[in-house]
Amino acid sequence: MASRTPAASARTPSRRRLSVDERREQLIAVALELFSARPPEEVSIDDIAAAAGASRPLVYHYFPGKQAIYEESLRRAGAELAGRFEEPAVGALSERLDRVVERYLEYVAGHGPGFAALLRGGSVAASPGTNAVIDEVRRAAHDQILVHLALTDPSPQLRLTIRAWIAKAEITSLAWLAEGRREPSELVRRRLVQDFVAALVVTAAREPELAAAVSGYLAAERPGSPTADLVRDLAGLLAVPGLAEALTGLALGTADGADPAPPAL
Amino acid sequence: MASRTPAASARTPSRRRLSVDERREQLIAVALELFSARPPEEVSIDDIAAAAGASRPLVYHYFPGKQAIYEESLRRAGAELAGRFEEPAVGALSERLDRVVERYLEYVAGHGPGFAALLRGGSVAASPGTNAVIDEVRRAAHDQILVHLALTDPSPQLRLTIRAWIAKAEITSLAWLAEGRREPSELVRRRLVQDFVAALVVTAAREPELAAAVSGYLAAERPGSPTADLVRDLAGLLAVPGLAEALTGLALGTADGADPAPPAL
Repeated sequence: MASRTPAASARTPSRRRLSVDERREQLIAVALELFSARPPEEVSIDDIAAAAGASRPLVYHYFPGKQAIYEESLRRAGAELAGRFEEPAVGALSERLDRVVERYLEYVAGHGPGFAALLRGGSVAASPGTNAVIDEVRRAAHDQILVHLALTDPSPQLRLTIRAWIAKAEITSLAWLAEGRREPSELVRRRLVQDFVAALVVTAAREPELAAAVSGYLAAERPGSPTADLVRDLAGLLAVPGLAEALTGLALGTADGADPAPPAL
Repeated sequence: MASRTPAASARTPSRRRLSVDERREQLIAVALELFSARPPEEVSIDDIAAAAGASRPLVYHYFPGKQAIYEESLRRAGAELAGRFEEPAVGALSERLDRVVERYLEYVAGHGPGFAALLRGGSVAASPGTNAVIDEVRRAAHDQILVHLALTDPSPQLRLTIRAWIAKAEITSLAWLAEGRREPSELVRRRLVQDFVAALVVTAAREPELAAAVSGYLAAERPGSPTADLVRDLAGLLAVPGLAEALTGLALGTADGADPAPPAL
């Protein structure tokens, strides 16, 4: 056993091994791991103390209770998750988003039960504090996507499109976890990226100001990208009996008659 | 003053005016109105008692506390909201959905603060009970949409598409309320319906089994429907410089070379 100074030996040994800051960080790290592996209602202060090699009173010395340590570890987790949305503005849009979603799904896979409990909101540990963490992560994701879209004045509709896509990423992640991550993450990722591109195009169809930017995004896409696969799949859909005719009829039926030629779609 | 029987006059008069069931229903109705107009944390038992012309002890006689009366009124509200998704299987898909979304937005407009507090989940009154109500409403919406799609075996992806669209309807409704419902509900509704159709088409592009059904849905759509407007807007988008070329390039670049002709899109 390492020798101790008399001053140290007069105190509880376990309190002395780490500095105050180190011990606090250690407790948070241990709690994060436990809350990632189990829903919060299945993690007790005793579990945290045992995993940290500390006593129950020591944990209470640093945190008033389980809710406080849960919220602090959530804040750390939220900051880490938000950091995963940071992506250099290099390459085609769908390739950037692909890398972001890859890191997001890695996080989901590594923190399954905690992630699920947090997003389901049904947890007994849900509180304004935990909701603030979720909101902050969503805001970071939203803002990062806007950075990559590089628009001077994004419309309220575009912001809604982005927020709804983030919700889809969450719903998809929860479903993926609930199925024990049976599906390869590559497929989940590809669909999410394609869903974003599709939602962006639909938003641009209703907003002339956005259309030119979307044209630019698409021009930078490359064969084999998630966007290219989506375009190919949509083109393939037009081969389904009756579908192209139905679309052409709809486009023509509402045209003002100035252009008698069928539209390109 | 109305004459009372001796037995009745021996009791608190206000308890005698309504039967037990009637009084309970009245308290719930009053609470529903208050919780629709204000967030739950701004409604007290005293407010409910005053609005019902009852005493505070009388309210407590029927409900153990505010949370219980809040949850019961939420259950009623949830049942009413779920009922608004019921729609006869008549007419084109986007027209049916249009009518459902119209009723949904009417509900949102009439129950703004309560609806917002419920969905934001940040309310101090959020609990497993309130979350169960939200989940039940979402499930009812999901199931009703599946009824109208009339598929024998909807895929997990399609279910996800539906659930994500329901989330988009919620996010859109909250944003609409937050802006004081500045935008006409017709526009909000049209976009939501179009978003569903677009998400359905994208899902079908990835699922050959769904493609034939979607072709059938589109064949039943009429000029002037939300779907027709969307198709026209998407066709218009192809006129944006460079956009059609970018899409054709992507579709061709990943084609397997068996079909050298450019795809129709």
